[in-house]
Amino acid sequence: MPTQIPDIVVSRLPVYYNTLRAMQAEGKQTASSRELGERLGISAAQIRKDLSQFGEFGKQGTGYIIEFLIDQLQTILNMGQSWDVAIVGAGNLGKAIAQYHGFAPQGFNIKLVFDANPDLIGTVVGDLKINDIKNLIPLIQQAGIKIAMITVPDQAAQSVANELVKAGIEGILNYTATPLNLPPHVIHQRHSDPVAQLQHITYYIGKHND
Amino acid sequence: MPTQIPDIVVSRLPVYYNTLRAMQAEGKQTASSRELGERLGISAAQIRKDLSQFGEFGKQGTGYIIEFLIDQLQTILNMGQSWDVAIVGAGNLGKAIAQYHGFAPQGFNIKLVFDANPDLIGTVVGDLKINDIKNLIPLIQQAGIKIAMITVPDQAAQSVANELVKAGIEGILNYTATPLNLPPHVIHQRHSDPVAQLQHITYYIGKHND
Repeated sequence: MPTQIPDIVVSRLPVYYNTLRAMQAEGKQTASSRELGERLGISAAQIRKDLSQFGEFGKQGTGYIIEFLIDQLQTILNMGQSWDVAIVGAGNLGKAIAQYHGFAPQGFNIKLVFDANPDLIGTVVGDLKINDIKNLIPLIQQAGIKIAMITVPDQAAQSVANELVKAGIEGILNYTATPLNLPPHVIHQRHSDPVAQLQHITYYIGKHND
Repeated sequence: MPTQIPDIVVSRLPVYYNTLRAMQAEGKQTASSRELGERLGISAAQIRKDLSQFGEFGKQGTGYIIEFLIDQLQTILNMGQSWDVAIVGAGNLGKAIAQYHGFAPQGFNIKLVFDANPDLIGTVVGDLKINDIKNLIPLIQQAGIKIAMITVPDQAAQSVANELVKAGIEGILNYTATPLNLPPHVIHQRHSDPVAQLQHITYYIGKHND
């Protein structure tokens, strides 16, 4: 396996993985690159190229064996283990994420939720109590959590991120519009800005209405 | 201007546009591709290549003139006009989106919110009343809305999408995990799955802990 896979390819692997899991749940045993491509709006050639980075998973004509490919992707993406996750910010978005049912089946367990608002601290979201953000460092350290999602107002994002780094967090999913300045060992992703996605849509709406 | 810009390039244009607007708000007048690249985690060469698709916006050494580039991108992305938007699904996620302050400054106005839950219909989110989903088609038609966001449970996504198409919607941002089957004239985007983004992160966390 090559040591350096382009990040753009890495970003597509979870999409393949989750789609293959959905196909497996539908009772399918094999998947062609064409079928995957149709489900995902990605060309079959691109899918074959991406997956070929990791070895020979499929044969021309017969398609990929779903179970085998899921196993391989699971290893590549470190999904063989479960990951505990903290959410910082318990507004509407934080609450929506804390109660999202899609995480647990994929091995992501929301364990801690924090907020700075005294009206929210001590209240419950789903089956989790909202903790005072003042206790962020000791609680995250104690729980050994390595991944956090930031759903605070934009202006608080960097200071929250600094606290998370002190707490030993190694991966951050940032839902704010603030680009974060973080030490290189902390992997972080900005969650797609819905505005940018709407603008992507209006690019095409504008074109076909011309 | 070429008629066919690769979709992957189109997807980056709003990111450039929004970053340039932020730089303009900071009082900057020019931006180098290196500076943009550092803010966005995209290589300077990639940025130059992407922007060169649309004409000669910058000069080597002096950087891009922010105001001019914003104007160009605004035209390309059809952001010169404002767009009304409907949200279908007023759970935590729908509410978070309805109250997100990032849309209006970019010309996206949330005008209608729908839900099927009798406990929610008639209640207020932000300054909008939640409408009965039964009235989706006439209300959207009457308002002439062309863009909708779907934040309903996964299993309801396709039937909601079908109604939206009947109502004349031309662009859909789909927050559910359900891939939508839509007529070709309807532009749609799946909002990034947070699970896939966490898996993208664990790929790297796993690697640097090896």
